[in-house]
Amino acid sequence: MTVNKIIFFCFLVSIPFSISAQTTDEDALQIKAIFDNTLSNSVSYDWLRHLCKNIGGRLSGSPSYDKAADYTYRMLDSIGADTVWKQATTVNYWERGKIESATLLGNKKSEHYPLSITALGGSAATPPEGITAEVIEVLGLEGLEKLDAAKVKGKIIFFNSPMNPTYINTFRAYGEAGAQRFRGPKDAALKGAVAVLVRSMTTRIDDFPHTGMTGFGDVKPIPAAGISTQDAGYLSEQLKTKKTVKVTMKLSAKELGKRTTHSVIADIRGSKYPNEIIVVGGHLDSWDVAEGAHDDGAGCMQAMEVLHLFKRLNIKPQRTIRCVLFANEENGTAGSKTYFEYSKNNAREKIIAALESDSGGFTPRGFRADALPDIMKNHLKTLQDWRGLLAPYGFYEMRPGGSGTDINPLRDLNAVLFGLEVDSQRYFDYHHATSDVFEAVNKRELELGAAGMSALVYLIDKYGF
Amino acid sequence: MTVNKIIFFCFLVSIPFSISAQTTDEDALQIKAIFDNTLSNSVSYDWLRHLCKNIGGRLSGSPSYDKAADYTYRMLDSIGADTVWKQATTVNYWERGKIESATLLGNKKSEHYPLSITALGGSAATPPEGITAEVIEVLGLEGLEKLDAAKVKGKIIFFNSPMNPTYINTFRAYGEAGAQRFRGPKDAALKGAVAVLVRSMTTRIDDFPHTGMTGFGDVKPIPAAGISTQDAGYLSEQLKTKKTVKVTMKLSAKELGKRTTHSVIADIRGSKYPNEIIVVGGHLDSWDVAEGAHDDGAGCMQAMEVLHLFKRLNIKPQRTIRCVLFANEENGTAGSKTYFEYSKNNAREKIIAALESDSGGFTPRGFRADALPDIMKNHLKTLQDWRGLLAPYGFYEMRPGGSGTDINPLRDLNAVLFGLEVDSQRYFDYHHATSDVFEAVNKRELELGAAGMSALVYLIDKYGF
Repeated sequence: MTVNKIIFFCFLVSIPFSISAQTTDEDALQIKAIFDNTLSNSVSYDWLRHLCKNIGGRLSGSPSYDKAADYTYRMLDSIGADTVWKQATTVNYWERGKIESATLLGNKKSEHYPLSITALGGSAATPPEGITAEVIEVLGLEGLEKLDAAKVKGKIIFFNSPMNPTYINTFRAYGEAGAQRFRGPKDAALKGAVAVLVRSMTTRIDDFPHTGMTGFGDVKPIPAAGISTQDAGYLSEQLKTKKTVKVTMKLSAKELGKRTTHSVIADIRGSKYPNEIIVVGGHLDSWDVAEGAHDDGAGCMQAMEVLHLFKRLNIKPQRTIRCVLFANEENGTAGSKTYFEYSKNNAREKIIAALESDSGGFTPRGFRADALPDIMKNHLKTLQDWRGLLAPYGFYEMRPGGSGTDINPLRDLNAVLFGLEVDSQRYFDYHHATSDVFEAVNKRELELGAAGMSALVYLIDKYGF
Repeated sequence: MTVNKIIFFCFLVSIPFSISAQTTDEDALQIKAIFDNTLSNSVSYDWLRHLCKNIGGRLSGSPSYDKAADYTYRMLDSIGADTVWKQATTVNYWERGKIESATLLGNKKSEHYPLSITALGGSAATPPEGITAEVIEVLGLEGLEKLDAAKVKGKIIFFNSPMNPTYINTFRAYGEAGAQRFRGPKDAALKGAVAVLVRSMTTRIDDFPHTGMTGFGDVKPIPAAGISTQDAGYLSEQLKTKKTVKVTMKLSAKELGKRTTHSVIADIRGSKYPNEIIVVGGHLDSWDVAEGAHDDGAGCMQAMEVLHLFKRLNIKPQRTIRCVLFANEENGTAGSKTYFEYSKNNAREKIIAALESDSGGFTPRGFRADALPDIMKNHLKTLQDWRGLLAPYGFYEMRPGGSGTDINPLRDLNAVLFGLEVDSQRYFDYHHATSDVFEAVNKRELELGAAGMSALVYLIDKYGF
């Protein structure tokens, strides 16, 4: 036994939850073959280059989204999936339009200062001449709550709570500070604000404004935009030194009604239990401002790569492996809802598990797992065993946690859900900003995630749930 | 390291993240304070920007190396280190010069094809008119060994063994394929080759040639250059289709004799055991072609940040915390040797531990640990406890392994050595190439590494060895 082999062996047995009799040496060898082959032969990075560079940003309902659906359909067909089809879904089509600007007004024109902003998804347009109003800074939803409606009425509310840099997992900071983007514009509108600026959701100080969905529900939308962290800092400074600060905002964003678009679905049919489905997916739509490389081109290419890997290694699954590239995750989740209804009403099929990659194409750290409590309880031991098999590849974690927005409803159909957990340090440098480009994705990091997903799907297929 | 020891050490990392009686809740709180403060208040990223953008590449003996030594001296002084000084060391100064080119010769001038190359450190110059010779491709040192000297004589040897993409830790692939760069030119010279081209040490296919040291020992140096992976592929294709392929290489590299330069050393003096030293360091020199951001500006800034963090949090160490920024790691390790001799001959001081960061400023994964066998044995339990304290911050590993080139000799002085282990996927995209720039370093990733180093130093200082 070589030293390397011993280290490998030790690593396996070293995991707190030792490997039970259930998994075998054959599994360890197969998983090694999966990683070796993916790191040597995957074309997922080339697919991603095409999606980002030849198609680019692809908001659901846009012509470029349709191109992305056509392209991924063709690729899935070309790798030999047994069936490939497009599942129609209806989305509310929102368009940014060409105009978005904000100017901090000085005493004279030469003192005007342009602010880097971009409309939030769901934002209303301003009148063509723009909206000019006094700016009131608040920290988060709590900051707005404290203000009397009289103070808010007619103003531009500026949410400026930064992401907490001390959280090791940046998604935690996004969840907290993000509330002011998710619900802030609606709350401000209810108090009579005429427009909203929201500090971009990133810990970087730079000049990229970040977009993202904001929800107005039944409230009439008002103009709402993300502002770069650099300019958020500048605006905040001005507010500290001046009695009043006025900004003119111009946005041309608008809702253009319902449109039909499609999720893309491909199966490798199971040889023994074809009606037991293992879903692996990501979302194909992205914000219009970026190439959607990390969010979520990477996740889609990884899901496609799982099928391609099974084909390349000639692994014939017992159960059906299904790649689903969901439409409309960013602004409506229509693709997710449609796929859930389809699955619920399809009595012939049972989704036993679903896995989503939607945290960026970064080095993997493990998987988050989720299921209805009774189901989860039954499978804890199995998941611990599997963790032992994956840890040598850097998949240290198999922890409870949310899986992914698109597959989340499938929990109620008794599926066991997984989310690919990746290193989160860089994600919000790019998230929903023009900086989310192909070049920001590293080939090996993308492939390691895809290989781990393939290994997990291999284990689910072999042992079932 | 014996097999038993490896098994023992592997077993060590298997213990779940329980904290033993030795360490305390206070330690966990202090470590949280260290991470929180670093992620909120560190200026290490700004230091790195200055080092990369205002100073840039800094080969030992060059004027820009001296600027880097001056700058880091000033910064260490400004943060309130008790002593800062420069330790003189003598290096062999090698200079690339202005000329480096290679042309694959076609049948006529219009068919000539330029190849992206860069001289390897230690390379000789060609005559001004260049060297024109037939190219022979070999895979690694083994490939050259198989060839008769008669076949090698008068030729340009082209080492084209790629890095193995299936190794999860890319440093393992570097160690293997790198042999053809470390020793290939010397072996080729001994067989009568007139020049050498070496495939760049990266798994990317791109147009950046990577430099790095090559050793000729007592053999008279010949011209030797790294060639980009893209052009290595092209050259290899040409060799497959044509009977003979000739290349003209021009290099102006030369040795310019001995120069005096300096490592930079700063102490925070211990309050209780000032003569027990904990070294934390990186190497300040870098290859001339790049900004030396990951290699090893990042490591130096992290080592400086450890001292700054102790000052910011007003932690008064019992033992002396010493930052050493070593000169000349890239092409001679004179700084390391001088510091070792200084330490060996300094009877008043005892180095109890040393920690180096020289794997790039990427997200940390843990620490490699190394010591003389008897010393290591005594501290296994302690290291296991410490791993439990660091794992919540992504430091999953505390495994045996090489610490760092500069501190390695200190093992023989009975020090316990540590190397910061980081995610290695992206390192060889940048290593020794012009792409190793400030923008390739992520602020949070750099800071997480620095915080983990500070936490480890805090524990070593508190509990000793």
